[in-house]
Amino acid sequence: MCAGDDHNCPDFEQHRQKFLENLGADRRTFLKSALLTAGGAAGFGASSLVGPALAQVSAAHQPAQRAFHYLPATDETVHWGYFSKTLKPKIEINSGDLVTIEALTHHAADDMERMVKGDPGAESVYLWTKDRKGVNRRGAGPEDASLFGRGAGEGLGVHICTGPVYVRGAEPGDVLEVRILDVVPRPCANPAFAGKAFGSNAAAWWGFHYKDLITEPKTREVITIYEIDATGERNWAQAVYNFRWTPQTDPFGVVHPTIDYPGVPVDHSTVVENHDVLKGIRVPVRPHFGVIGLAPKEADMVDSIPPSYTGGNIDNWRIGKGATMYYPVAVDGALLSVGDPHASQGDSELCGTAIECSLTGTFQIILHKKADLPGTALEGLEHPMLETQNEWLVHGFSYANYLEELGGDAQSAIYDKSSVDLALRDAFRKMRHFLMTTQGLTEDEAISLITVSADFGITQVVDGNWGVHAIIRKDIFAGRA
Amino acid sequence: MCAGDDHNCPDFEQHRQKFLENLGADRRTFLKSALLTAGGAAGFGASSLVGPALAQVSAAHQPAQRAFHYLPATDETVHWGYFSKTLKPKIEINSGDLVTIEALTHHAADDMERMVKGDPGAESVYLWTKDRKGVNRRGAGPEDASLFGRGAGEGLGVHICTGPVYVRGAEPGDVLEVRILDVVPRPCANPAFAGKAFGSNAAAWWGFHYKDLITEPKTREVITIYEIDATGERNWAQAVYNFRWTPQTDPFGVVHPTIDYPGVPVDHSTVVENHDVLKGIRVPVRPHFGVIGLAPKEADMVDSIPPSYTGGNIDNWRIGKGATMYYPVAVDGALLSVGDPHASQGDSELCGTAIECSLTGTFQIILHKKADLPGTALEGLEHPMLETQNEWLVHGFSYANYLEELGGDAQSAIYDKSSVDLALRDAFRKMRHFLMTTQGLTEDEAISLITVSADFGITQVVDGNWGVHAIIRKDIFAGRA
Repeated sequence: MCAGDDHNCPDFEQHRQKFLENLGADRRTFLKSALLTAGGAAGFGASSLVGPALAQVSAAHQPAQRAFHYLPATDETVHWGYFSKTLKPKIEINSGDLVTIEALTHHAADDMERMVKGDPGAESVYLWTKDRKGVNRRGAGPEDASLFGRGAGEGLGVHICTGPVYVRGAEPGDVLEVRILDVVPRPCANPAFAGKAFGSNAAAWWGFHYKDLITEPKTREVITIYEIDATGERNWAQAVYNFRWTPQTDPFGVVHPTIDYPGVPVDHSTVVENHDVLKGIRVPVRPHFGVIGLAPKEADMVDSIPPSYTGGNIDNWRIGKGATMYYPVAVDGALLSVGDPHASQGDSELCGTAIECSLTGTFQIILHKKADLPGTALEGLEHPMLETQNEWLVHGFSYANYLEELGGDAQSAIYDKSSVDLALRDAFRKMRHFLMTTQGLTEDEAISLITVSADFGITQVVDGNWGVHAIIRKDIFAGRA
Repeated sequence: MCAGDDHNCPDFEQHRQKFLENLGADRRTFLKSALLTAGGAAGFGASSLVGPALAQVSAAHQPAQRAFHYLPATDETVHWGYFSKTLKPKIEINSGDLVTIEALTHHAADDMERMVKGDPGAESVYLWTKDRKGVNRRGAGPEDASLFGRGAGEGLGVHICTGPVYVRGAEPGDVLEVRILDVVPRPCANPAFAGKAFGSNAAAWWGFHYKDLITEPKTREVITIYEIDATGERNWAQAVYNFRWTPQTDPFGVVHPTIDYPGVPVDHSTVVENHDVLKGIRVPVRPHFGVIGLAPKEADMVDSIPPSYTGGNIDNWRIGKGATMYYPVAVDGALLSVGDPHASQGDSELCGTAIECSLTGTFQIILHKKADLPGTALEGLEHPMLETQNEWLVHGFSYANYLEELGGDAQSAIYDKSSVDLALRDAFRKMRHFLMTTQGLTEDEAISLITVSADFGITQVVDGNWGVHAIIRKDIFAGRA
């Protein structure tokens, strides 16, 4: 049974109603507990970056009535492979509203039977005949494919992003709080695989491992298809089979010798499926969104791959259910999009992709106006921050705002300039700034505290602009006056 | 009260006896549970890298009677700042024996009142008058200080290492298993601070932050003294005060403008103690040993700072109580030393040091002979591996064996050549090798599994040979036949 989050379910409306009622009850509980512990207006939790005062002020800007929205993923509601401040919003919401957003993996064409077939939304997006594509542009490159001839947009950017969502009243300088209330896998719509969901892991040419293979043939791309339990009873994924990528000819007749353009349907008569893989191995499931981001202001068309100051393809597996993200708003309406759903990945996303698996998320979106930020923990926020129940995380990148830092050819230059060292430096600087501004520490205090208590992990080394995150536990500050 | 691990306690012998009795009971419980779950001879835990067969074979090499040893830290039992295969062992043990080893921090002279005074062992090590030092050589540099004039050994290597411990029968090609059964802070012996222990965090010139300071004066080293509860009732540390390093004149008359030589007593009349630091902040305590290592074979005198294939200064905070390390043996007797005790650090050890705090550890040392390794998870182990209750970790370094890879001037060259990128590559290769050899995976299976489930973290960027660790959960394999 769907939980009111599967748009393809025949009883969707009825389930949806029940889901919303439950969500309302959850929300009331949140409010109550926050009121009790914070002694005032509520944040998402008692030790949220949004303190009681800011929560109250921001709540006062919201309409009295909270709306619930549903944004399905279809050929009409997605943009593929890019962010753009020029995109027409697919939905408009008010601060405080809840919105359920379907996100489709851009790797579903690795196994159309398991990840597309029978699913009207996915079928509309993945439609590709010799005459037309459901979504023609894929990437921020030229629409006429005059650069490489791969296809419209050239695959310079790959993620299917649902949105954008226009947040009424959002302006540059504001901060958008995105609470992830729920994340569920998108069940396979093919009756042959009822009760299951599927994802694809591509060990691809952009992976960190690619030029470092030790078995023959040393140049190869390998896709592994994973199965996830769509009923939620199992918290692990298992491999179904893998295959080596062979040159694929898309319906327009273009040959793709490597994985160079998203959504190319794999012709399984050309590959060898090896079903004897990773036997008995249980991969812990960590459902999360690789991409949640706002439109940047620096360019009209922005490749969806490199993460930046407005978020995007951060690829941190902690951005899942119960987490809250904070983003600086760069353009009017914020223009929030969600994509790149993952069933699981490890820190580094080493081979190039996660278990890429369609998911549906339910979010509460809260706008914090610039004028209300002075003196709060969100004042001057210039980068995407993550808050979990017990931790705060900053995201460092090789270039904090590569679009601005690398000039006119930033979107190609970024792919040659990244290093973990640079991302570590950025993460250090952001964490230092965070502790000095939100906790009032001196630089010496901040540096000592970071060193003895903050953990730096490698978020990803496959997204052009490499990432390092720094984690600091909230309870470190629990004893402060 | 000491728990049989404080050599300075007047009732040490009585407490020690009680401790050993308890340890015996613990050990019997271990054996029993392992026998029950593994259905045979025991490893440290049921899913240990040492399976029942190897455990049985290795146990058969051990004497019938297990001995308990105590190695205090004194001027007679430590070597300061280097590993060496030429060192005379301080104790000889058999495989299977237990040994309690005191480890002194090399930062105790930052506050002699709190970390040395009244403690006979520490006083003997730190003794430095105008005529003599308790331990003259500090570092692997020239004994006559002809290189920089800093002092004997030149501070090319800084850690006070207790040992070496000679393991009877250990030969190159064997693997030494080091189980960390217990770790306790060394109580302050100065009655003015009864019940407390102290540590020092130095934000020093070799820190990742050093050339990136934003407040004046932009060139500075800062020491922060932390207090730890020696009774074990509190699991957090708190700052006591900090001070900026000023040029210090050592008892031999050499001036140290920066922290360039270990054990220089800080004259507190020359520094300004700022006691208003990190108020109310609770640093989670993670007691562990920065240094546990065997003597390498490549050189006679080896700087203690860069970690390498025989372990040494790995600086992973997970190397604490309950953890097991595995090291390849490089020289006869293995020559195990322990030092660089830490009350806490975060992944990266960003500013250069942890909370450097004397600790006492109790270890069980088990030798696995090369001839018994074929077909086991330890076959061909060429790097230090960590096993915790739930995880396996490989340690990658910028150079896996820098002594061999960087040639004759390796010990100076390593300081200019490190990067996190290189350490990540080494960690990837080691984890791939681990999964292919111990789990029988193909390269494609290993790479996919690493990507979707292994987390890569930045161990340290301050030890010359930078470190990245990769963590994989044991329960991933729990469902295998």
